[in-house]
Amino acid sequence: MTPSKPTKLTTPGPTLGVVGGGQLGRMLAEAAGPLGVEVVVLDPTPDCPASPVATDQLLGDFDDEAAIRTLAERADILTFEIELADQDALERIESETGTPVHPKPQTLRTIHDKLVQKRELEDAGIPVPPFRAVEDAADIREAIADYGAPVMLKARTGGYDGRGNVPVEGPDDAEAALEAVAGPAMVEAFVDFQREISVIAVKGTDEVRTFPVGENIHEAEILRETVVPARSSEDVLERAQTVAADVLEVMDGRGVYGIELFETSEGEILLNEIAPRPHNSGHWTIEGAVTSQFEQHVRAVLGWPLGSTARRGQTVMTNLLGDVEDPRPAELRPLEAVLSQPEAHLHWYGKRDVRPLRKMGHVTCNSEGESVDSLLETARDLRETLTFRDHQ
Amino acid sequence: MTPSKPTKLTTPGPTLGVVGGGQLGRMLAEAAGPLGVEVVVLDPTPDCPASPVATDQLLGDFDDEAAIRTLAERADILTFEIELADQDALERIESETGTPVHPKPQTLRTIHDKLVQKRELEDAGIPVPPFRAVEDAADIREAIADYGAPVMLKARTGGYDGRGNVPVEGPDDAEAALEAVAGPAMVEAFVDFQREISVIAVKGTDEVRTFPVGENIHEAEILRETVVPARSSEDVLERAQTVAADVLEVMDGRGVYGIELFETSEGEILLNEIAPRPHNSGHWTIEGAVTSQFEQHVRAVLGWPLGSTARRGQTVMTNLLGDVEDPRPAELRPLEAVLSQPEAHLHWYGKRDVRPLRKMGHVTCNSEGESVDSLLETARDLRETLTFRDHQ
Repeated sequence: MTPSKPTKLTTPGPTLGVVGGGQLGRMLAEAAGPLGVEVVVLDPTPDCPASPVATDQLLGDFDDEAAIRTLAERADILTFEIELADQDALERIESETGTPVHPKPQTLRTIHDKLVQKRELEDAGIPVPPFRAVEDAADIREAIADYGAPVMLKARTGGYDGRGNVPVEGPDDAEAALEAVAGPAMVEAFVDFQREISVIAVKGTDEVRTFPVGENIHEAEILRETVVPARSSEDVLERAQTVAADVLEVMDGRGVYGIELFETSEGEILLNEIAPRPHNSGHWTIEGAVTSQFEQHVRAVLGWPLGSTARRGQTVMTNLLGDVEDPRPAELRPLEAVLSQPEAHLHWYGKRDVRPLRKMGHVTCNSEGESVDSLLETARDLRETLTFRDHQ
Repeated sequence: MTPSKPTKLTTPGPTLGVVGGGQLGRMLAEAAGPLGVEVVVLDPTPDCPASPVATDQLLGDFDDEAAIRTLAERADILTFEIELADQDALERIESETGTPVHPKPQTLRTIHDKLVQKRELEDAGIPVPPFRAVEDAADIREAIADYGAPVMLKARTGGYDGRGNVPVEGPDDAEAALEAVAGPAMVEAFVDFQREISVIAVKGTDEVRTFPVGENIHEAEILRETVVPARSSEDVLERAQTVAADVLEVMDGRGVYGIELFETSEGEILLNEIAPRPHNSGHWTIEGAVTSQFEQHVRAVLGWPLGSTARRGQTVMTNLLGDVEDPRPAELRPLEAVLSQPEAHLHWYGKRDVRPLRKMGHVTCNSEGESVDSLLETARDLRETLTFRDHQ
């Protein structure tokens, strides 16, 4: 798998090809620079977020096999920040160009279909909420009878940020929910969770490392804040990291994975979702950990030794979401408060237009001495000062 | 001076034009990315170190007035990482394009000529070693008679990394030293220092901030290591920061300045040199301070609020210098030890060729719990594992 010859640095350095040039691609490129690793992204939007900080951008759709092949030919390793490419195509590209793809296409295939994913994880002994495949409304009603209402109907493929997830309150809502999902679906028991938490985990050549557990606060199913360390008991934190490490044993291929978990009111840990890439709930690691999730991903996919996942103080990350009614050119202001706050770090994603609830950037508040509660208050206060709307 | 309207972020963001695209330009670009600031560098070398991480590179010499004007026309603010441009040219460009230059050309003029610099600083009450202008060998011999031998003969312009500095051991060496300097010169009393220290200081719109004091270890007049905090008494550290802040009162224009100081065996602080830009002895701030010197420079020149200069733990930075006899394509290895060391952070400057003693990158060792002595040992051990030479 890994070259046995010693790792070296040259100029130009190794080239990482990234399918997708959004904010994750941008932050990957920002982390790659100091390591001498050049990043080339593939993205259909000219001047995509990663473009000004990456070495180069290729124009093409995320699932354009010819464009991905061109990217692979130019790269030493191929990875992705968005998992839309056909996995068979990735396997063909990997075998034809000889450029390794990490994580492996097989892993994408597993994750891509939430039903297949849950089955594989359950088989591997990972705790998951009760689930089953559904073909029609009768299957949903049967699940409600078994699990109790409500249940969560999920599109098997294509959902993210809560899209494709439809709560079903009772048997009468089954038909409508199935229409809303409009495609192959599965149903899960509704988890009455105490807390949503996540673990950023990284798989290297011969080891798995996990970052400290983050607590995720969602609104309208979109991540608003991550609080690190999560305000759970030591025991829960430890088990969450164990589950995340176990999940990575099932995954094939090096790289960073975002493992979303539920903590139930009984302190039980249940797997929610897996992202085979750096994850929004891991952005805190840029200032809050010795090595960021982005640097870890670069190290991991290249087969380099992994960095320390130790935490640096306490951290709260808050997303900056579009607070507008309609799309318009992005203009965020005033920056004075956030730039003047000693604990705050501003991250702008370089998107030209703001749209309702679009992720435009984030602010991280980090401190050695302050509590997460106090940092959460600071982060929220700062976020309140910022707007994309018109000023009077 | 500063816009009174609130600072805002858009895409594309403000553009910083940087004269010079070496490692300082590269690390400026790396710091600018998260803030949404685009960096365009001017450098004569195609694919200069900053090129792969900056938005764009213009090809041109550092003192090419037409090229600098083109850069200024494209930028919102013009700054530099190398001070070779003619200051009159910079003033013309500033007034003709309306693009502010920071620090101000007048400051460059003052710093450029070490004699003028020392006179202005002495007039402002900054403690400097005894110095005087020299026209001929007789002046040097007179200085030796007054200050005692040895003295340091310095080229008034153009020296860096010790180049242009010639120690004069006695009256008989005066002629040879003058020939070696080959140009307008000044002479300084030789400071029998206890320690070389430096303070990275930043001048914003209406305030000056200083980073914690670093201790600099030189070899053959080239910086090898910076140790933070410097191993001096609290009293000395405090006075060093005061002197640095006083120096910045004399400077005109926003930005980061590197203030090199001597700590004498009596604990006295004397000014050595000033660099009107981020400085090698401030690279530790990337991991070792809340805000890096590069982010501070970006904030300062744009007229944005400054970030916190607080230290994060203890830090040792070691330069990776070319350990070869002759120039050759750069190939540093093996990276395993440095990548595996939890305290270590690798920074590669993206230079194609290694030359004897050329600055090729640096390694920063940072820790919350370890002492600087232990970190210094770790950093030196790691550096010893790395080489640009052939392996057997």
